[in-house]
Amino acid sequence: MPTKVCVSRFRRVGHPFETCHHLISLHPNEKTPDVEGILVKVDLAAICGSDLHTVSGRRSAPTPCILGHEAVGRIAQFLPDSIKLLATDYHGNPLQVGDRVTWSIAASCNQCDFCTGYNLPQKCERLFKYGHARSAANGLECLNGGFADYIYLRPGTAIFRLPDELDDKSAVSLNCAAATVMDGLRKLDQPIGDTAIVIGLGMLGLYTCAILGHQGWRNLIGIDINPQRAELATHFGATQNLVWSDQIHRQINQTVKSCGADLVVEACGNPAALTSALDWLRFGGQLLSLGYVYPQAMVNFSADLLVRKCLTVSGNHNYHPRSLGQVIDFVQQTQDRYLYSSLVGEVFPLLEIANPNGALKN
Amino acid sequence: MPTKVCVSRFRRVGHPFETCHHLISLHPNEKTPDVEGILVKVDLAAICGSDLHTVSGRRSAPTPCILGHEAVGRIAQFLPDSIKLLATDYHGNPLQVGDRVTWSIAASCNQCDFCTGYNLPQKCERLFKYGHARSAANGLECLNGGFADYIYLRPGTAIFRLPDELDDKSAVSLNCAAATVMDGLRKLDQPIGDTAIVIGLGMLGLYTCAILGHQGWRNLIGIDINPQRAELATHFGATQNLVWSDQIHRQINQTVKSCGADLVVEACGNPAALTSALDWLRFGGQLLSLGYVYPQAMVNFSADLLVRKCLTVSGNHNYHPRSLGQVIDFVQQTQDRYLYSSLVGEVFPLLEIANPNGALKN
Repeated sequence: MPTKVCVSRFRRVGHPFETCHHLISLHPNEKTPDVEGILVKVDLAAICGSDLHTVSGRRSAPTPCILGHEAVGRIAQFLPDSIKLLATDYHGNPLQVGDRVTWSIAASCNQCDFCTGYNLPQKCERLFKYGHARSAANGLECLNGGFADYIYLRPGTAIFRLPDELDDKSAVSLNCAAATVMDGLRKLDQPIGDTAIVIGLGMLGLYTCAILGHQGWRNLIGIDINPQRAELATHFGATQNLVWSDQIHRQINQTVKSCGADLVVEACGNPAALTSALDWLRFGGQLLSLGYVYPQAMVNFSADLLVRKCLTVSGNHNYHPRSLGQVIDFVQQTQDRYLYSSLVGEVFPLLEIANPNGALKN
Repeated sequence: MPTKVCVSRFRRVGHPFETCHHLISLHPNEKTPDVEGILVKVDLAAICGSDLHTVSGRRSAPTPCILGHEAVGRIAQFLPDSIKLLATDYHGNPLQVGDRVTWSIAASCNQCDFCTGYNLPQKCERLFKYGHARSAANGLECLNGGFADYIYLRPGTAIFRLPDELDDKSAVSLNCAAATVMDGLRKLDQPIGDTAIVIGLGMLGLYTCAILGHQGWRNLIGIDINPQRAELATHFGATQNLVWSDQIHRQINQTVKSCGADLVVEACGNPAALTSALDWLRFGGQLLSLGYVYPQAMVNFSADLLVRKCLTVSGNHNYHPRSLGQVIDFVQQTQDRYLYSSLVGEVFPLLEIANPNGALKN
């Protein structure tokens, strides 16, 4: 007996989401479709900033598509059923129907140069990103985004079981911002120093504060243009927060030791953040840049600062799956210190994504 | 009996060098001056690009000064004579009068945060750079540049004995460009890859080619705006050379594998080199920037390339003394492959530096 699955498809800018239903077979003894993968019942999906960019038109997407890549759920079915004996999570442990899981935002081929030699599966030549692809009108493979009852996880997706003590709201954003931050910080050749500055306190910036705060930086300064967001930083590990204004250079000079900051993390996408970071870093300092994910993010900077100060600037986008595993462990260990679930707003039923007073209202 | 020492002092832009003589005591039994250090007889000093910038006025210097920081020589005297029992080279081996040596271009205090915790003695808070400081009219300490018969090496200078088989012309530039390149390449977390591109084939670029060529990169492309300089690259390890023109992007796209280069080294100081490098690098690629050592080297670039391609950009200026030791070893090992002495032009007596047809003519 096929099951009715609810899907919310984004059609185009300015038009509401289209809600529709698919009939899919979830019974292992029925004839399975000609696909291999794992079907997951979505328990909670979050609206990421990039989803909002797509809805508003600042970012283009192939349409129609099922948005939503930040999600958690439970395994509903192995496809075909016979693979259930072979299916494992990223760490190699067997998976079962009913397991509560999250997964990498993309599936990789595990064969191209980026997957193998370069160890960058997130830049796989045949990368498939959930919540960013065209979704056909029918077939299991069209269930490729989080804004639906079910999502179909392809081979090459890294799956992680979630600890029972981590609730859905604390876990739902781990496979996007949190894992990206963990991955970027892992790239740095930076021992714990005296002073780190985090510019931009959205999800990227707050997870950065949480990780650096747990590492024990003596001065961890969070900066945002919005006073309420700046305030949040001190609840996620920052020792101080500042509101970005034309006074920010004076404030930083008063706050940071005279030789400069050891580390700056740019998590806002504003060109002024990068140029300010180069001014604020000490000789040998490091900048991790995460926020320039929009086309033609032009930045004009003094390259002599880069050279004479012996700086290192690293960009990071998405993540190696191991970073998702690490950030799950990290959030589990630190959830008594940081109230991660507070980062997710009101929860709505799927159908209300299309409601003008629903999930996308703000 | 005091010895007459010849010194060539730079006074100001547009005016010839002033040659003068000092009387200094070199006999260990005479009363020694109230300084501690090592006096070295300069056998050969090279004219670096930064010396030319000072002479032409593009770079300011405190005057009068004795230019010249690339040099080799022999130990003439320990000051006071009693320290000869304690004086060692960088590796801790005893030094003796007559030892043939080169030395770090700067003396560091070994006490400040940069010398200790940050392991960046080249950015010491009390750094003294040879060939860049004001030189008083008399006193041993005024002998602080290479364009003189003798140079006085202060405490905190890393001294290296030169192997007999390395001639002066092959060794004279090691303590500037070569050590800077070695230091910058050491910072990279870059296994030997498929393709490296070196932009700018002055001393920095040619030593980069030599080191990468010896490492065994499959494609090592040297680029310069000057065809003669470009040609030189293939004598120093490059597998291919290109002349920079408006065709360079097309040529690189034809030459480099489709995913892009693994490493680009910028060694020319032209803003277009950095923006081109970001285009040419593969996902996860690295850029080492060495050339932007002039004030306000403004570069306008797409920060989204930095982030989306997960690039790392490292600046490097000067070096940790251990890199000088390593490059001396490297040049000794590879001098049969690369004709390092050919990088130094005609040799002139010190007095001819002030002669319009002498050392600075070209």
